[in-house]
Amino acid sequence: MYPYSRPFVSPASSPIRDLYKYLRDPETIGLSGGYPDATLFDIDGLREASVRAWQDTRLCLQYGDTDGVVKLKSEIIRLMERRGVRTAPENIVVTTGSQQAFDLLLTVMVNEGDVVCVEDPTYTNNIQALRVHGARMLPVRSDADGLDVAQLEDILRTARTDAERPKLLYTIPTFSNPTGATMSLARRLHLLELAVKYRFLIVEDDPYSEIRFNGEPVPSLRALAAEVDGAEDWVVHMASLSKIVAPGLRVAWSIAPTEITRRCAIAKQSADVGSSAWMQCIAAEYLAGGRLEAHLERISKVYGEKCAALCSGLRELLGEAVNFHQPDGGMFVWAKLSGDVLAADLLKQAIEQKVIFVPGAGFHVGSPDPTTLRLSFAAPSVSQITEGVRRLCSAWKALRAPA
Amino acid sequence: MYPYSRPFVSPASSPIRDLYKYLRDPETIGLSGGYPDATLFDIDGLREASVRAWQDTRLCLQYGDTDGVVKLKSEIIRLMERRGVRTAPENIVVTTGSQQAFDLLLTVMVNEGDVVCVEDPTYTNNIQALRVHGARMLPVRSDADGLDVAQLEDILRTARTDAERPKLLYTIPTFSNPTGATMSLARRLHLLELAVKYRFLIVEDDPYSEIRFNGEPVPSLRALAAEVDGAEDWVVHMASLSKIVAPGLRVAWSIAPTEITRRCAIAKQSADVGSSAWMQCIAAEYLAGGRLEAHLERISKVYGEKCAALCSGLRELLGEAVNFHQPDGGMFVWAKLSGDVLAADLLKQAIEQKVIFVPGAGFHVGSPDPTTLRLSFAAPSVSQITEGVRRLCSAWKALRAPA
Repeated sequence: MYPYSRPFVSPASSPIRDLYKYLRDPETIGLSGGYPDATLFDIDGLREASVRAWQDTRLCLQYGDTDGVVKLKSEIIRLMERRGVRTAPENIVVTTGSQQAFDLLLTVMVNEGDVVCVEDPTYTNNIQALRVHGARMLPVRSDADGLDVAQLEDILRTARTDAERPKLLYTIPTFSNPTGATMSLARRLHLLELAVKYRFLIVEDDPYSEIRFNGEPVPSLRALAAEVDGAEDWVVHMASLSKIVAPGLRVAWSIAPTEITRRCAIAKQSADVGSSAWMQCIAAEYLAGGRLEAHLERISKVYGEKCAALCSGLRELLGEAVNFHQPDGGMFVWAKLSGDVLAADLLKQAIEQKVIFVPGAGFHVGSPDPTTLRLSFAAPSVSQITEGVRRLCSAWKALRAPA
Repeated sequence: MYPYSRPFVSPASSPIRDLYKYLRDPETIGLSGGYPDATLFDIDGLREASVRAWQDTRLCLQYGDTDGVVKLKSEIIRLMERRGVRTAPENIVVTTGSQQAFDLLLTVMVNEGDVVCVEDPTYTNNIQALRVHGARMLPVRSDADGLDVAQLEDILRTARTDAERPKLLYTIPTFSNPTGATMSLARRLHLLELAVKYRFLIVEDDPYSEIRFNGEPVPSLRALAAEVDGAEDWVVHMASLSKIVAPGLRVAWSIAPTEITRRCAIAKQSADVGSSAWMQCIAAEYLAGGRLEAHLERISKVYGEKCAALCSGLRELLGEAVNFHQPDGGMFVWAKLSGDVLAADLLKQAIEQKVIFVPGAGFHVGSPDPTTLRLSFAAPSVSQITEGVRRLCSAWKALRAPA
């Protein structure tokens, strides 16, 4: 009945959101969502931070600067320095989650029909954001070492016109959602060189890198950009407190070249005027309070135990039936079913057995592989995970049993 | 250097933001901004609300539903009922300020080149939002009785093709920003009939209606829609706690037909996943605490005194030099200079005299009238307002003095 705009004529359903209803049954174990474990929130630290923030009620309650509250930006600069990134206030926009940082960047950079390369598979909400902005998405394969930079180079090299060349590449290089994979150092350096050569922006989405429970840290693309001539002009870095502190704060930020940052702030002015100053003040006080490092150690340890429980369970109970790479951090395990078993079929049985996961098809920009699935170990407890894998195994057996 | 999207090639500067720098001088009196008076914030009430909200830390700190926290929606339904509007959860999206409600609606409804009618003059950030979305804006005049609905009817009647007919009309019908004017009841009813007949959405932006210090309330377009056959299908109502409680909460909402609401929620999923659940919980507890009505009485009284100080000052000191209508509520007085004095010239002198206001040109979608200006009485105190008008008078005299 209404004259909607084109991208909303048939809004895509979300492969993750569509599963929420099953979690209303408290018996059902969710290996589906990307929610952090609420029992790990640093309640004391956040309460203290909120008490300190409240000392300046006017700052909390009035409009703040559109690009972010000054003292939060200072804390972000310090935090990024610990991550090997030097930045400045004029390169930061504080946003409502990284999701908004991405949306603002697309508002500023992408016109209907522009080519955007996307690591494949990738995070569903950002696929949807690219659709809303009318981007023409080109998938770039990924494997256990992250984005296949050689394939990207082929795409860049063989583009015949400027219009065919991507403006942006979107990647989650460290502990990817959904694959859990981390891009190798060699690929990172190669990617940065390509960005300079072919003049496209790398959009580095980095919400998970500090949830590392195995192996050595790999510097972010933004950190490495300092080592590649001209590369700092071609990286937009997005980071967030959602996974490492609490999603309810909705505090995230982008780090970008000055001119892009200025435009993103203008876009934010008409998108929402500014994120909550009160939440920003609490986030600033939390970061200033110096509890984050100990908190990261604690949550990384717990997530590591959960990941180990999931992976050893899968190996023991499902063995050859699933293939996967055990990640060194983050929240997700990406698995592929053997024997032409379809994830959607397994999900139907799994729902019967009261366990859910997300079939991989929805994460693909290119041709979906119907045998893949994403398992999250973040929210459930170790014992729920162990029981969840047992139920998954029952579901798999039910599926393979002769009718 | 970067391949920006078209609407950002030359980002408009903001007539309001560009003035902020003068306020760094503490001697300068700002009659420019739209900030509420921070000394009026209900600090005790908000502290109590935040303590109550914190009793459910998990709800505060985890991701919330994209369209809004359930208990806040219940409070919004109750609040809207007191304003004569019956609504339901499936018609509400909680947003980060009304600004986001408008941006989401444009994402869902407006394609590049679509016609949108805009009450003229109007709020600058929403003009910018319409530009970002590529809308073709058609100004509709307004006067002391609000939108000139007869002129709108002419536009609708004479449109030769569907593409020429507006999809949306944007209006602030009660205590408009910048004019302070309120649309008459007769015009409201006529407007609703036109929306049904010509099938366009009325976007009713309603942040100020409860700051009334004179005269009788006029029902909102959304409330009146119940009386006009079919009209409820053609009104999107946006309301906010920014002006009446505190902007730092960034809590606002839209009320729209179910199908539009569903799409706005999908758009919000890729815009920012959701507004801060913590802030929404505090807002819900504040509304549930029952302090809002007494608070509204208190702030309306103070804003009324400030408005009276501004208007009587202008009449006494500037007399024939300015023409304006004294508003019955809101935060703004819209004035027109006589004798071909330009607002931009007056502003230059005013800055010298340490008082600032916003020249009207930036609020116009149609041909700007360079002799108009917006004065806000919300943030400064009565004595600052009185002194501010005195300085304005000196500025005016300096401008009229022979060089």
